[in-house]
Amino acid sequence: MIVMTPAATEAEVEAVKARLESRRNLHVLVMPGELTTAIGAIGDPEGVAELGIEGMPGVDRVVPISRPYKLASSELAHHEPTVLEIAGRIVGSGNTFCLIAGPCTVESREQTLAVARVVASAGASMLRGGAFKPRTSPFAFKGLGPPALEILREARAQTGLPIVTELLDTHHAEIVGETADVIQIGARNMQNYALLEVAGQLGKPVLIKRGLSSTVEELLMAADYVLKEGNEAVILCERGIRTFENATRFTLDLSAVPWLKLHTHLPVIVDPSHAAGDRRLVAPLSRAAAAAGADGLIVEVAPDPETALCDGPQQLAGEEFAAYAADVAAHAALTGKRLA
Amino acid sequence: MIVMTPAATEAEVEAVKARLESRRNLHVLVMPGELTTAIGAIGDPEGVAELGIEGMPGVDRVVPISRPYKLASSELAHHEPTVLEIAGRIVGSGNTFCLIAGPCTVESREQTLAVARVVASAGASMLRGGAFKPRTSPFAFKGLGPPALEILREARAQTGLPIVTELLDTHHAEIVGETADVIQIGARNMQNYALLEVAGQLGKPVLIKRGLSSTVEELLMAADYVLKEGNEAVILCERGIRTFENATRFTLDLSAVPWLKLHTHLPVIVDPSHAAGDRRLVAPLSRAAAAAGADGLIVEVAPDPETALCDGPQQLAGEEFAAYAADVAAHAALTGKRLA
Amino acid sequence: MIVMTPAATEAEVEAVKARLESRRNLHVLVMPGELTTAIGAIGDPEGVAELGIEGMPGVDRVVPISRPYKLASSELAHHEPTVLEIAGRIVGSGNTFCLIAGPCTVESREQTLAVARVVASAGASMLRGGAFKPRTSPFAFKGLGPPALEILREARAQTGLPIVTELLDTHHAEIVGETADVIQIGARNMQNYALLEVAGQLGKPVLIKRGLSSTVEELLMAADYVLKEGNEAVILCERGIRTFENATRFTLDLSAVPWLKLHTHLPVIVDPSHAAGDRRLVAPLSRAAAAAGADGLIVEVAPDPETALCDGPQQLAGEEFAAYAADVAAHAALTGKRLA
Amino acid sequence: MIVMTPAATEAEVEAVKARLESRRNLHVLVMPGELTTAIGAIGDPEGVAELGIEGMPGVDRVVPISRPYKLASSELAHHEPTVLEIAGRIVGSGNTFCLIAGPCTVESREQTLAVARVVASAGASMLRGGAFKPRTSPFAFKGLGPPALEILREARAQTGLPIVTELLDTHHAEIVGETADVIQIGARNMQNYALLEVAGQLGKPVLIKRGLSSTVEELLMAADYVLKEGNEAVILCERGIRTFENATRFTLDLSAVPWLKLHTHLPVIVDPSHAAGDRRLVAPLSRAAAAAGADGLIVEVAPDPETALCDGPQQLAGEEFAAYAADVAAHAALTGKRLA
Repeated sequence: MIVMTPAATEAEVEAVKARLESRRNLHVLVMPGELTTAIGAIGDPEGVAELGIEGMPGVDRVVPISRPYKLASSELAHHEPTVLEIAGRIVGSGNTFCLIAGPCTVESREQTLAVARVVASAGASMLRGGAFKPRTSPFAFKGLGPPALEILREARAQTGLPIVTELLDTHHAEIVGETADVIQIGARNMQNYALLEVAGQLGKPVLIKRGLSSTVEELLMAADYVLKEGNEAVILCERGIRTFENATRFTLDLSAVPWLKLHTHLPVIVDPSHAAGDRRLVAPLSRAAAAAGADGLIVEVAPDPETALCDGPQQLAGEEFAAYAADVAAHAALTGKRLA
Repeated sequence: MIVMTPAATEAEVEAVKARLESRRNLHVLVMPGELTTAIGAIGDPEGVAELGIEGMPGVDRVVPISRPYKLASSELAHHEPTVLEIAGRIVGSGNTFCLIAGPCTVESREQTLAVARVVASAGASMLRGGAFKPRTSPFAFKGLGPPALEILREARAQTGLPIVTELLDTHHAEIVGETADVIQIGARNMQNYALLEVAGQLGKPVLIKRGLSSTVEELLMAADYVLKEGNEAVILCERGIRTFENATRFTLDLSAVPWLKLHTHLPVIVDPSHAAGDRRLVAPLSRAAAAAGADGLIVEVAPDPETALCDGPQQLAGEEFAAYAADVAAHAALTGKRLA
Repeated sequence: MIVMTPAATEAEVEAVKARLESRRNLHVLVMPGELTTAIGAIGDPEGVAELGIEGMPGVDRVVPISRPYKLASSELAHHEPTVLEIAGRIVGSGNTFCLIAGPCTVESREQTLAVARVVASAGASMLRGGAFKPRTSPFAFKGLGPPALEILREARAQTGLPIVTELLDTHHAEIVGETADVIQIGARNMQNYALLEVAGQLGKPVLIKRGLSSTVEELLMAADYVLKEGNEAVILCERGIRTFENATRFTLDLSAVPWLKLHTHLPVIVDPSHAAGDRRLVAPLSRAAAAAGADGLIVEVAPDPETALCDGPQQLAGEEFAAYAADVAAHAALTGKRLA
Repeated sequence: MIVMTPAATEAEVEAVKARLESRRNLHVLVMPGELTTAIGAIGDPEGVAELGIEGMPGVDRVVPISRPYKLASSELAHHEPTVLEIAGRIVGSGNTFCLIAGPCTVESREQTLAVARVVASAGASMLRGGAFKPRTSPFAFKGLGPPALEILREARAQTGLPIVTELLDTHHAEIVGETADVIQIGARNMQNYALLEVAGQLGKPVLIKRGLSSTVEELLMAADYVLKEGNEAVILCERGIRTFENATRFTLDLSAVPWLKLHTHLPVIVDPSHAAGDRRLVAPLSRAAAAAGADGLIVEVAPDPETALCDGPQQLAGEEFAAYAADVAAHAALTGKRLA
């Protein structure tokens, strides 16, 4: 839809029309209004975008009508929800709730195995834990690297929980792909397209965290990068966006959950830990996510969060996890879901 | 806490110290560090703010340590939650949930009475409805004015529901005060201090909506404007903030609910309608608000939302309200609350 | 422009078309596309807004095409720039630059007269100074009130500078209107419509500051509130918006200057002081505003900013003002403007 | 600086003090206040961060006092500005202005050579042009890849202009490093730490664009990632941040220019093209950047912007570039700088 300025001449309208018609497969419709003329162009959004109409004389705005994401769309692609099975856990079916829990970062064998046992016995669906950590400052702790992957494999062997871990660098694709049951793409990498494509090719489900200043439409476009590799196993994760409010570290955008459930067939989960930045907010936000219709949660737990090396203040204590999980499950049950 | 630049001289540190000490009741402590010197000033935050320390040579930053709100603080003022009784409805007690429902705007007697009956029979606690509406454009519908107040009184007489309506202009204080059981201050007026003071003097509970770009700390400072008039009956309302995301009209900040419950003794409710801008998001966000620990909801309902003159697409249909209320009540029940 | 969902049925399209056609003066055009159908409705934007189309089955989005502001529009209203003459100073002519300077708040007769002399001798166009100050916390200093207006009148008598001062409350309209040569509406009141209307009726030019989370379109709608009172003398002021960045207090949106100059006939000035929050940023941002094409600046100056009671750290020192004014004037001169 | 809650017990204060003292090299100071106790910890900020103090009972907040960036700091690292010489062009010296211009994307040999000649003859300092382009949607044009690098080399040979081009993927490091005179890191990759480290190791100057939701402090931390590789040749670039305002694509944060000049020794340039999204805003914003004290600009130019495949509407037309460059140079001259 091209909107002309009120002062646009007929010749300018004609020039826009002519350029649009230079593109095959475009149906063009001129709509003269009282104040301004609008021109509809139907059939090939990328085609229109590449014509440079916005810079032509007399053009006020180009208003895109079609959605910019395709494969992730419940309207344009398949209408049935995507249901994943990950080592026996069902994600996205509408009657299961996927509770992913574990330490922010794998810091030691003892810490990781202890947390794994705690969350497994409380009914968690999967184990999370970072081997490589993105850090804003180059002087901060960056994770144990490959030895952490070894520890995660041991935790899986002991508890049966599938492993969710982050892929941070295309050079680690092979070793992360060998261990992970779910490949996590972090918020800072949501628009790292090289990484998305590599992740999509590993043959494992990919969990994409929303970028901290990315719109939900951009999240779906990021999913398109993985889906176009032929990998249909994508999980979306809301984790808080950057706003002017700094009472919390990020603003958890729970509206994104029902919005995404309306517009995509992919499962949608929520990470309440990073946005809260305060352990006391994690449980209420987790219950809220379940009530809003999320397909699951990914949450940080530590045996002794007060001494965790990374992101300590937001991690749930291991001892409170069983009560937390029961609480979340009760709210999920009201929406028809039970723990996967 | 005053932080000096690394290059600050001893004379500059001394000058800051001397100015702080010129204020009575201030305890001053110099803390020399490896790179920078910090100076603590304890005892009188407003006093420090008025000394103009930030502009002195060698000063890098002034970091306020104390909270800027006082009367609304659960730490500085009374530690017990404030519990209101409004025509028999209990708000803020920890075991009641206050469901305020009604049309966005009073458009006609028929519409308003019809909605009032629907929400009363489904268990709503109070009736909302605008007599005067703030509109961004001066050419939009602005409400019926005084006749709307008459209609609201009739609705109260028929259903017994107390009335929540907005005060928009200090000139309407008397007539709004005569009708309303709860005086609403809209988001655009959250920092209209003249209005807050007048509202505080009417002797009725005041419901303050968070400004669309106000922090939660500023919401508590706005509450202080009412509280300092001797009016202890204040209800806070999260209604969405402005962010870069425009898939929804505003970003409902549900983290504000548990944050406020930690930091203030006042009741906290949520308005999911304006933020969503789409009726299909209202129910999931309402359930989420209840799950996050809100003391209530204020929601828009219309008998036939498709023809409402104002904010139509976000209003719940009357016919779906009973199911909606039951759903919300079930989530509230899990947090120990029943409909007031 | 109404966009249907891909799954919308023909009956749903027809229902939307029928409702649009129920409105007189609307020209309706159905445009079937490959994936979705779009429906253009031309001729009466408020009419369409009130039909509640957004809530109808099968409707995906309503995309407004026309601009929401009218009287302030350079396209819809008069195409010639509005030029004001205020006590001999020309604002908005394209070859004049209006430098408004003075203390944040009138704190004393001595302070105000001293600053007035400094800025007058350096070539300032007008004197600013607050008699009533909006303060986020009710416990902060709120201005001297009426005695400050008296001091401002004396400063005008001594220097010949017209007075810019803020109207905060409709109850002060008369006394502020008697003193002010320009009525300022503060950022927090940009959507206080009762105040805008009263200001518009005082027969004096009105300077409207952009709300800290208001879009430029909303700023123009606020101007419409004054313009529709028959008052054509409106000045717009960019003063910084709220974003995630907190290295500065607000983010000065200098793009708003050329955007507004393209879309409105009203003069556009910039307030660099409040956004910066640090005196050292004020001069570079002022030069940038002049270079971006602003019609003027409004800036805070204090004889001794380090002891100012309010907003001290951002005020220019009186002794540096002459150099500052010369610098700004040099950049303004490159855009064809000289100090008014 | 640790702030305790008003209700914190003496035992809780003692526990925090004890944990802080468990760290060597930390000097600990308890400051009891009227309402709350604050505890200063001086000497090792990373150490404090890793103690998990924020999660301890009785702790309200941990307020970091020291700056999180180090090598990029003008206070902590070297106080002299970093001056780069790139093929004879001086950047960051305080009396030179670096004008980098060229097409958004290398689309063809003809287009690129034509633009290169235009910008060279108007006095540009360097040539920009993308070989690999990050695109939000996987279905959009992504650049010509290696053949584009060949074209850029030919343009350099013809005009003598050094080449600025983006590194998008660590796998392209070698071939991009062979051609580029300056390696550009795009906004979406500002926190792609693997890429920053690789870029830092190529032995070429690195131009880092600010992430669209990154603070200026985070930009300096990203610079630290390159600087710690021993590469001192880093240029910072403000290019607009994401805010609620969508009249422009991004909000160009020109306050960042003087703020960065105060806090870092690195050169600071501005990209006005992407933020504006409208060619008519590019010239005023470029003049403003020069007036604000920037060390240069990076701007998009196309021979025929209306048919450019990518980002057309924001590119300057080749024919207007000479006038544009003269305008910018005049404003830069007022700040003491001439075109490099």
